[in-house]
Amino acid sequence: MKVRMFLKQAWDMGANDPRKVIHCIKVGLALTIVSLVYFMRPLYDGVGGNAMWAIMTVVVVFERTVGATLYKCLNRVCATCLAGFLAVGVHWIASQSGDRFEPFVVGASIFILASIATFSRFIPSVKSMFDYGAMIFILTFSIVAISGYRVDKLFDLAHQRISTIIIGTSLCILVIMLVCPIWSGQELHSLTVRNMDKLSDSLDGCVRQYFTNSNGEDDQKLQGYKCVLSSKASEESMANFARWEPSHGRFNFRHPWKQYLKIGASMRSCAYCIEALNSCINSENQAAESIKKHLSTSCLKVSSSSSSAIKELAESVKKMNKSPTIDLLVEEMNSALEELHNDLKSLSHLLNPSTTAENQISATGLVPFMEIIPVVTLASILIEISVRIEALVGSVEELVKESEMKDKIVAKGEKPEGTMKALQRV
Amino acid sequence: MKVRMFLKQAWDMGANDPRKVIHCIKVGLALTIVSLVYFMRPLYDGVGGNAMWAIMTVVVVFERTVGATLYKCLNRVCATCLAGFLAVGVHWIASQSGDRFEPFVVGASIFILASIATFSRFIPSVKSMFDYGAMIFILTFSIVAISGYRVDKLFDLAHQRISTIIIGTSLCILVIMLVCPIWSGQELHSLTVRNMDKLSDSLDGCVRQYFTNSNGEDDQKLQGYKCVLSSKASEESMANFARWEPSHGRFNFRHPWKQYLKIGASMRSCAYCIEALNSCINSENQAAESIKKHLSTSCLKVSSSSSSAIKELAESVKKMNKSPTIDLLVEEMNSALEELHNDLKSLSHLLNPSTTAENQISATGLVPFMEIIPVVTLASILIEISVRIEALVGSVEELVKESEMKDKIVAKGEKPEGTMKALQRV
Repeated sequence: MKVRMFLKQAWDMGANDPRKVIHCIKVGLALTIVSLVYFMRPLYDGVGGNAMWAIMTVVVVFERTVGATLYKCLNRVCATCLAGFLAVGVHWIASQSGDRFEPFVVGASIFILASIATFSRFIPSVKSMFDYGAMIFILTFSIVAISGYRVDKLFDLAHQRISTIIIGTSLCILVIMLVCPIWSGQELHSLTVRNMDKLSDSLDGCVRQYFTNSNGEDDQKLQGYKCVLSSKASEESMANFARWEPSHGRFNFRHPWKQYLKIGASMRSCAYCIEALNSCINSENQAAESIKKHLSTSCLKVSSSSSSAIKELAESVKKMNKSPTIDLLVEEMNSALEELHNDLKSLSHLLNPSTTAENQISATGLVPFMEIIPVVTLASILIEISVRIEALVGSVEELVKESEMKDKIVAKGEKPEGTMKALQRV
Repeated sequence: MKVRMFLKQAWDMGANDPRKVIHCIKVGLALTIVSLVYFMRPLYDGVGGNAMWAIMTVVVVFERTVGATLYKCLNRVCATCLAGFLAVGVHWIASQSGDRFEPFVVGASIFILASIATFSRFIPSVKSMFDYGAMIFILTFSIVAISGYRVDKLFDLAHQRISTIIIGTSLCILVIMLVCPIWSGQELHSLTVRNMDKLSDSLDGCVRQYFTNSNGEDDQKLQGYKCVLSSKASEESMANFARWEPSHGRFNFRHPWKQYLKIGASMRSCAYCIEALNSCINSENQAAESIKKHLSTSCLKVSSSSSSAIKELAESVKKMNKSPTIDLLVEEMNSALEELHNDLKSLSHLLNPSTTAENQISATGLVPFMEIIPVVTLASILIEISVRIEALVGSVEELVKESEMKDKIVAKGEKPEGTMKALQRV
């Protein structure tokens, strides 16, 4: 029974996201191709029986996205070369120092270099770019330096290790880029657009549900903002990998990926407020119906205009150009805010002695102050959300501007990634 | 200049957290010890020149915490054994099918098993426990199965791979557990306590700064809640690794680590509200001084009693026993809330015509309704925070209860980790 459940769960996962299945097939494909190295005598002899390094390379560097794979491949190749040369140098020094001291020199060099490389992995700037490379550096250096003590043809070993790794990484790069490539950059882009849509839906849905007392809203839609709250880590790793990717689709090499992180942070700051909004909607203190009615028009206007501003921003990010209507929508949002301000002010008429007589609402009788609080809180959180949406507008505009600037630079022909683009067209 | 800056930054990092430096030294130490395998002839001959597997094992499985290292070690050993046996089996089948079909059988088996193992890494329950194992499975299976085609003594290869890996992993486990061990569980525990303290400080600091208009508050203290917002990912990975750790310090094997994640979620839900509180403090709409004064006593009481409740919870988690005073503190918080409620009610006297005469505050003149809004919002967010603190109290009590239950079970002698404990005492 449990096994069946597990299999059903796995099947559903595959059916929901066929790209995962494609990735698995790609891994199988790459591994099968690299096995050919074993089966072909000339290639096998060429790397002196060290063909397993190529297999190992494929297994460890093959990641789901192009960016992650390129990051690992480039790190692996560079670190291996660097460590290989260093190790050959250390071996030469050690062999000069006589048989007795050789193990000590080698041991000490391994201890020192491994410690330093490990330490460098803690430094944030190194970690984000070369974490994997530092590990491979330690690995290759230790293996090659120590092997010098036993393997006579040390230079051959270093050379074989480097060539098998190059065989493995080139194969990985070819497979990952030619067979249904998944780009980190594209993923980050879609995630950002998707999250904006979710944010807009939850904002509008929450406020509408509160004021119209309808339970017809899709609960999953209302909870959409929670995805925004929890996507920081994945955004960061995708932006990190996207930097390694050549130009693909509409994204050039050096597309302003970092700006997506800023947009993500702005979205999260909106989502925090929606959290607070939600709690105020679900709070025990229920507001008086008359007050709710009084503010409902303007609150609904604010929420619908803010959410359509977010929707428009999503569209603008999607198409990667400045939206022509966003200024209009922000203006609309601000005028809705103005209206909400006025409604809030007139709320005091309900209680303020100086104006009771001339006010319609007061005809319904005085409302206890406590019953005003939830609606007032909701309104002021809505106001805060619109302030944060303006910040979001700013960061999206910056992204569009920066990306257009990059486009211009590339159009001028100052691009180093022409070959990469040609490769993609194959 | 830049290099100097970089070095200074690295030095500061080391000086601030000496444990990072110790970790680096541990990596160097483990690697140097494993190199001895190369220098000692009997050991080297024993593993037939495949000693580099032991070095590789040390480099890739040595992590900062005991839990992460154990997770990788156990995964690596189990996956290697499983894959080794399977590969020998597949090789036997392939060799029965004749020279011509052998490469195809091997290739097909690699393709199928690699695809399935890759797919399993996407399933959340497998990912959290066996992600690394699945990768090692693919690696070992491919290497051993393919080597069958060229290496005559396949069984020897499988045996050597397993024994070198066991040498490497045992060495790692010894070094990581005996030389200044850093436990994931202990780290998670301290992080939780630290985050609670930060939450309490920011809550109290924000409200105090608002009502006393003092700028003397430490800005870093006020921003402490942001650490709570961003520590979800690290909490999850630590809880994941802590499961692999034997009993250490006051924590038994199978300590309820998952409960820490619940506490973390409760803390984050408080932190979201503090975010909203902060934005309401920094908003442009400033409240009238008279209103601020009217509510300041009760708001300050609520915030200080809530923050001392959180402090007490932190203490309770730290000592891992039910705090004797927490109920009292929650009661105090509730009575402060009651007071705030009354103050809020009496706020209406300021505006409500029926009671103006008998109220002192109204003597200062009528306050525009808009100037009440910020304080009212702040007060209702404070009320919401205290609701969430009660949820936090609940999850902390659950943790303490579960941990006491585990302690009792262990005290009864039903523990499988006696040997591990003995090992630690060495």
